[in-house]
Amino acid sequence: MEPVTTPPKHRVVIIGGGFGGLYAAQSLNRADVEVTLIDKRNFHLFQPLLYQVATGTLSPADISSPLRSVLSRQKNARVLMEEAIDIDPENHQVVTRRGTIPYDSLIVATGASHHYFGNDQWKDDAPGLKTVEDAVEMRRRIFSAFEAAEKETDPEKRRSLLTFMVVGAGPTGVEIAGAIAELAKETLKNDFRSIDTTEAQILLVEGLDRVLPPYPADLSVKAAESLEKLGVTVRTKTKVINIDGETVTLEYNDEREVISAKTIIWAAGVKASGVGRVISDRTGASLDRAGRVMVEPDMSVPNHPNIFVIGDLAHWADSEGKPLPGIAPVAMQAGKFVAKLIKARVENKTLPVFKYQDLGSLAVIAQNKAVANVGGFHLSGFIAWFIWIVAHVYFLIEFDNKLVVMIQWAWNYITRARGARIITGGVPTPIEAPPARPRQETPVEV
Amino acid sequence: MEPVTTPPKHRVVIIGGGFGGLYAAQSLNRADVEVTLIDKRNFHLFQPLLYQVATGTLSPADISSPLRSVLSRQKNARVLMEEAIDIDPENHQVVTRRGTIPYDSLIVATGASHHYFGNDQWKDDAPGLKTVEDAVEMRRRIFSAFEAAEKETDPEKRRSLLTFMVVGAGPTGVEIAGAIAELAKETLKNDFRSIDTTEAQILLVEGLDRVLPPYPADLSVKAAESLEKLGVTVRTKTKVINIDGETVTLEYNDEREVISAKTIIWAAGVKASGVGRVISDRTGASLDRAGRVMVEPDMSVPNHPNIFVIGDLAHWADSEGKPLPGIAPVAMQAGKFVAKLIKARVENKTLPVFKYQDLGSLAVIAQNKAVANVGGFHLSGFIAWFIWIVAHVYFLIEFDNKLVVMIQWAWNYITRARGARIITGGVPTPIEAPPARPRQETPVEV
Repeated sequence: MEPVTTPPKHRVVIIGGGFGGLYAAQSLNRADVEVTLIDKRNFHLFQPLLYQVATGTLSPADISSPLRSVLSRQKNARVLMEEAIDIDPENHQVVTRRGTIPYDSLIVATGASHHYFGNDQWKDDAPGLKTVEDAVEMRRRIFSAFEAAEKETDPEKRRSLLTFMVVGAGPTGVEIAGAIAELAKETLKNDFRSIDTTEAQILLVEGLDRVLPPYPADLSVKAAESLEKLGVTVRTKTKVINIDGETVTLEYNDEREVISAKTIIWAAGVKASGVGRVISDRTGASLDRAGRVMVEPDMSVPNHPNIFVIGDLAHWADSEGKPLPGIAPVAMQAGKFVAKLIKARVENKTLPVFKYQDLGSLAVIAQNKAVANVGGFHLSGFIAWFIWIVAHVYFLIEFDNKLVVMIQWAWNYITRARGARIITGGVPTPIEAPPARPRQETPVEV
Repeated sequence: MEPVTTPPKHRVVIIGGGFGGLYAAQSLNRADVEVTLIDKRNFHLFQPLLYQVATGTLSPADISSPLRSVLSRQKNARVLMEEAIDIDPENHQVVTRRGTIPYDSLIVATGASHHYFGNDQWKDDAPGLKTVEDAVEMRRRIFSAFEAAEKETDPEKRRSLLTFMVVGAGPTGVEIAGAIAELAKETLKNDFRSIDTTEAQILLVEGLDRVLPPYPADLSVKAAESLEKLGVTVRTKTKVINIDGETVTLEYNDEREVISAKTIIWAAGVKASGVGRVISDRTGASLDRAGRVMVEPDMSVPNHPNIFVIGDLAHWADSEGKPLPGIAPVAMQAGKFVAKLIKARVENKTLPVFKYQDLGSLAVIAQNKAVANVGGFHLSGFIAWFIWIVAHVYFLIEFDNKLVVMIQWAWNYITRARGARIITGGVPTPIEAPPARPRQETPVEV
């Protein structure tokens, strides 16, 4: 029991337990405030490694940290597993399905999801990779395709089953394409009897003129070379015109080409979470074309100094007016900054403005293959890959996860095995369970 | 291409990649036969540790081994991910959805599933634990119940959310009840702000007069003591009369009691897989009350010396006419024996009859708490727990799995953390997403 005399504590409500929200909560550790972290899920997800779940290297829990255990020892923080459906700036409260939660300062960090540029009907045939469920479904599709190919006698269908198309050659697309290539050319090559997995086709399609467009040109070249060496077919300046589940229609210089591919992965674009729209409606804040909230230099919403938007949901323009990239370091730094700012206000202090410290960019292609732009140094090959490994293990929040992931990686490094290539969940697709046929006497090709 | 002169190889078809089927396939490694292993799933599941997935200690992939990678180096073996829907003894072939697979020898090892003793309507409210999906769903329910309790203001509902009932006190029921107790009393005790998880009620209900009925009586006493010490309420000689999702009706000495419990877990009975019925229909073999196929001393089906049934699907009567228990060692030994027998036949040799070597029985209750009956020695406490750990790690088929599991266990042993307590998949239940309410101004209790 606190003595009745103490004034009510400053209430900080954080929506979203991603990198931005969680780092904000943790940075308020010693502040004299009450922190409530609201998330639909009960865990923080280390999204940069999600593609390793999708390709059978890691398990979901290896890259997830229960929010409650992360904040267990932080006495001024509580976790609420709930969905925020609205905000009410006049009355300073967040609206959830179960009622309202009052705040003195609000931090919104609900991130982003896939963007199909007006072709949402492609979603089922070309899923994206944002959630654990996305990754498990992708894993199911990738490995089910090889299983179906092993059983398929029609060479046309077999080729389609062994064709994997990744749409979008940003870091995620490059990582997925590289991982699938490693799977087909290395991990699985001795596991099947009827098919030669090394004949699998992996296509990486990019609308712009090079892979990893935001990277320095020489690193894009290096990345493309590594991908080609791995057996990935890189198609730049190529647009996806249509996807129908059996085929993909590509366009290159007004030339159209139809490719049959059973497994299609969407890594082309992200759209800010719908909460951005809510904030805009309630505060009049404007959104950019990706649906991100245009924020002030201190990450606050215009005319609402106690409402902050950070991470993938925020459009924070630098001196040249360019928005910060939607990557974890940006969200972490913004989360820490806003936490410091709130703490300073509570203590009636002031704080220097937010400066983004660019730690550089890293994209991994395969074992020993990565590209990195660190402090102006352009690195590639093993050294870039090693930096990538260290950086990612370092940032995995909970020690047990780090340890398990390191063991997994070490083991995979030696054996090129993929222990997590299990096909689970999901509604059985035609791939997994072909329609029942009348009993027939012709032997199966196995 | 084989030279045309070699005689066709003896074809062994194995249905089911569990302990029986997989060990049979591996034991045929050096035999001059063609092995085809058929399984609906693409992985072998180490079922004895499934409860650790259900309670957030391990991930599904930690206890799963892809069948293809296990058999990758075994040149005479191939894996077919397919469902066997019928067998045709006259024409020596297995019928799948995609056609038929001819065999010279057939080994059926499709195991068992839950048995609700004619109350299948309880299935949704009281799920069992046989598959990875079962375990993930159980994990989702257990951790969602704590999350919902944290938000619940009605003390009645909160108590119901914090009441966990495990039906059946065999090894699985004891393990689950013990693990949930450890969760509530240890792992989660500092993670919530509104509830005291140590007040959670864990009930273990058993129809017979003691826990672990098949075990020596003194070990049952020891197990019950350990469970009570952990905070599990053990209710023996108690029958479940009804389950309706909100409440469970128990009967003890004709006295009925209604208990409201949100989370109910079924560990009461198993029924042999439906393939047993198919075998009976096609071969005239008789089934026991659990649906197991009555087999000859050499595990073959009467009058069908080239069709074998092993593992949980087989009823193999020992000298006293008692069937062997449905545990992994029985299935492994039977698998190895049948493989040897087929090899001997192919080489025109004979083999001594099958003798089951009883390695004893082990049940774990919690950290440092287990009971073991090994070679007549009745062990309990740390030593039994240590034997359990060693035995289970040893039998985890793939090295990477072993290593990861050891790390996880070591880490959990030190921290009592549970890294895999993530809530994923599944249709959101009322627990996870309460029905949308009209916007209200009363603050949420958080």
